[in-house]
Amino acid sequence: MSRAYDLLEARFKKAAILGDALSVLHWDMSAMMPDGGAEARAEQLALLKTLSHETLTGADMADLLAAAKTEALDDWERANLREMHRDWVHAAALPADLVDAMAKAESTCEMIWRQARPTADFAAVLPSLREILNLTIQAGQAKAEALGVDIYDALLDQYEPDGRSADIDAVFADLETFLPDFIGQALEAQAARPEPQLPAGPFPVENQKQLGQHIMAVLGFDFHHGRQDVSAHPFCGGYPEDVRITTRYNTDDFTTALMGVIHETGHALYDFGLPTGKWRYQPVGRARGMQMHESQSLLMEMQACRSRGFAGFAAPLMQETFNGTGSAWQPENLYRLGTRVKRGFIRVDADECTYPAHVIIRYGLEKALIEGRMDLADLPGAWNDGYRRLLGITPPDDRLGCLQDIHWYGGSWGYFPTYTLGAMSAAQLFAAAKQADPAIETGIARGDFAPLLAWLRTHVHGKGSSLSTRDLLVAATGKPLDAGVFKAHLQKRYLD
Amino acid sequence: MSRAYDLLEARFKKAAILGDALSVLHWDMSAMMPDGGAEARAEQLALLKTLSHETLTGADMADLLAAAKTEALDDWERANLREMHRDWVHAAALPADLVDAMAKAESTCEMIWRQARPTADFAAVLPSLREILNLTIQAGQAKAEALGVDIYDALLDQYEPDGRSADIDAVFADLETFLPDFIGQALEAQAARPEPQLPAGPFPVENQKQLGQHIMAVLGFDFHHGRQDVSAHPFCGGYPEDVRITTRYNTDDFTTALMGVIHETGHALYDFGLPTGKWRYQPVGRARGMQMHESQSLLMEMQACRSRGFAGFAAPLMQETFNGTGSAWQPENLYRLGTRVKRGFIRVDADECTYPAHVIIRYGLEKALIEGRMDLADLPGAWNDGYRRLLGITPPDDRLGCLQDIHWYGGSWGYFPTYTLGAMSAAQLFAAAKQADPAIETGIARGDFAPLLAWLRTHVHGKGSSLSTRDLLVAATGKPLDAGVFKAHLQKRYLD
Repeated sequence: MSRAYDLLEARFKKAAILGDALSVLHWDMSAMMPDGGAEARAEQLALLKTLSHETLTGADMADLLAAAKTEALDDWERANLREMHRDWVHAAALPADLVDAMAKAESTCEMIWRQARPTADFAAVLPSLREILNLTIQAGQAKAEALGVDIYDALLDQYEPDGRSADIDAVFADLETFLPDFIGQALEAQAARPEPQLPAGPFPVENQKQLGQHIMAVLGFDFHHGRQDVSAHPFCGGYPEDVRITTRYNTDDFTTALMGVIHETGHALYDFGLPTGKWRYQPVGRARGMQMHESQSLLMEMQACRSRGFAGFAAPLMQETFNGTGSAWQPENLYRLGTRVKRGFIRVDADECTYPAHVIIRYGLEKALIEGRMDLADLPGAWNDGYRRLLGITPPDDRLGCLQDIHWYGGSWGYFPTYTLGAMSAAQLFAAAKQADPAIETGIARGDFAPLLAWLRTHVHGKGSSLSTRDLLVAATGKPLDAGVFKAHLQKRYLD
Repeated sequence: MSRAYDLLEARFKKAAILGDALSVLHWDMSAMMPDGGAEARAEQLALLKTLSHETLTGADMADLLAAAKTEALDDWERANLREMHRDWVHAAALPADLVDAMAKAESTCEMIWRQARPTADFAAVLPSLREILNLTIQAGQAKAEALGVDIYDALLDQYEPDGRSADIDAVFADLETFLPDFIGQALEAQAARPEPQLPAGPFPVENQKQLGQHIMAVLGFDFHHGRQDVSAHPFCGGYPEDVRITTRYNTDDFTTALMGVIHETGHALYDFGLPTGKWRYQPVGRARGMQMHESQSLLMEMQACRSRGFAGFAAPLMQETFNGTGSAWQPENLYRLGTRVKRGFIRVDADECTYPAHVIIRYGLEKALIEGRMDLADLPGAWNDGYRRLLGITPPDDRLGCLQDIHWYGGSWGYFPTYTLGAMSAAQLFAAAKQADPAIETGIARGDFAPLLAWLRTHVHGKGSSLSTRDLLVAATGKPLDAGVFKAHLQKRYLD
């Protein structure tokens, strides 16, 4: 006789395969689909999401989960059961028609946002965004009740399991105290040094692509199991056997695409390294959550590849790719370029010192909107107030303001804090890795990422979701999330 | 209270959306997927096929279909119900585990075939192909019983509804009598003319792509609702809002890719022109069958675009694209090149005179294999016998022989005859169209395909599956399939 647990494994495998198919459809929508295909794609996404929801909310699920708890399970099976239960709570909280309505509203709003952003026309997308927010609040309330947490935490929990805003509030309050002075000091230190020179373009897309894919391979990206393409909004999608990352190219500045490629490669390496075999299609085999996922992209981009060591390795490749000569192409100049601090409007272009300010602004706003303390019509004004307060700058229009990020328009609410939690985790993991194996830092300076990747495979990627984010950090670094490591990293890099 | 018919519409819409998602996944597998993604993709395809099968085989389907027959329906609804019934018979004949087994075996065999073909290693793919054939026979037997027809006809019926081998046998016997003499005469006539000159390459892929996409637009391809990419085996996939065609480029001869692009554009135009609105996701809104689909690709490729008129229009574009000068680039030479007759090994490279021989060979072989009159191990020998008998040539290896086509390895048995039925329908439709509107032929010579497209939209594309293939041909051309029109076309083009 089968265990209840085994029946659950079959069901979660089915949901995972639907998730993989959704991931391909979503990648295609962003990277390949002609604009006229949007409506048909929305139908497909909504149907597959509904089928996945159905799979996880069968009438017998509660009984199966309860029965499985009493069965003999090994450690990973028990961890898997815990994650199954989590998925089920999230799924069962939502009625099927809400899942369908959200999927369709998200696709619609995302397409309207794509038109509205270039023309800075927030009013055009407001009705559709209001629909998204209403549905999100409905879903959040249902999940809050099921999880026994506040509405914001219920939404956050979708992206960062067990993430709670009380913890985030404490961390962000600390950063809000630290950052303004620190950014001032970093800018002062930067002003005292000669200004880094921007290598002169144009930089043909074909050459940028070649350099990017060369560096992806150096980092460990396996092109038999993945691709790199172009999309307006870079991301990493797919699954361990077939990871798809995207980039956007700027022919005036090759570094933005290159650092974007490195960032997404960090995500990709996490996916490549997830548990295989028996756990491939199970909840415990998935990445731990968005905090840990973002830690992997930022570890590669910010920690490893904006270092002096990496600049020394990469400079000759860049020179060769673009026939670059002269002082702008020297490693020290490229390092300075990669670590410039500048108060800017666009989150994804921000340096690691000002980045947390962007996240803190969005976190405050989405919490207020979700909790009904602010009306959506007031978002542009409140957004600009936040930028004045935390960065001392005022966006000239909503394209550089509240229209810049896809998240809210695509239905992702409660996601933003994971970026900064990820940045902090990245600093902590990288410090622990370097301490554990001195070959990691010397390897990076030679373009040998094998020691770093080996450490990450063992301590992060291969763990899947077997541990909580907190326990994973403790096991890997000896302590839970510690903002001090991140602050120390910033001080060392920008003030020394 | 809803009609049973309306409940059926909702179910068939769900199946159609799953079909659209499958189509994107299949396109991606052929045009984008890295090789390491094959296994995961096979899981996705199998699951979505199983879910579609489930949707069409609910326990209440027979009752719903019977109830709908007694309800007040308009003409299109009644035609839709007829097509629903057809889909249901095909689906219900197969147990779910056979659907799953076939989907997985097809993905596996296709991947092995991709390796085996370049090395002409039939033995390597034989066990996997045997598995496919066994499953196909199981499916064919089940469907034969449900449809009350022979096993081969049951398989054919999947691609060409109501297609019957007795009719095909008669048509093919006629062609087998006609072709050998005719090919001999055509070669003789060709030998009496100066040999056409091949324009000298190489022809860069980028230029070929530009020319191809220009001509696609001339023919009526809408790039807001479609794309063109590269794949090893050109095809047309997708759905009306998002049609994807693929091409393969040969830098020594730009005409093969160009004529391939035109062929697939013919398929695409059919999909673009299918009924929209209420019928978009219903069986009656689909293309009529593979005979009619192939007629649309061959009408564009063979009838319209291998004409003297089109050569006159296209020659300057070709000259401009490749900086072509001299006699090889003159319209009459390009026309002669496009209508060369040559006995060759590869079906997809064959001219329209020898093409039916390729199809007749495959038809005979697949029928014998399906009916158990031949063992798969004997396929390579029997294949070569066929080529000796009908074309007087012997393939030097299985790469140029029985490994060349994907169909059997991908699970498509009973498909081949539709190519030649399509070629004959193309001749008949084009003759009727030209007679109905003289602007069609003069338009083609100017690169104006609007009159032709308008006629096809009205008489073929917009009909969806509302008529049978036979009735559609009668309505459009005044008579059922008439091999005489095809033969007259060949005689006029190749013997005059």
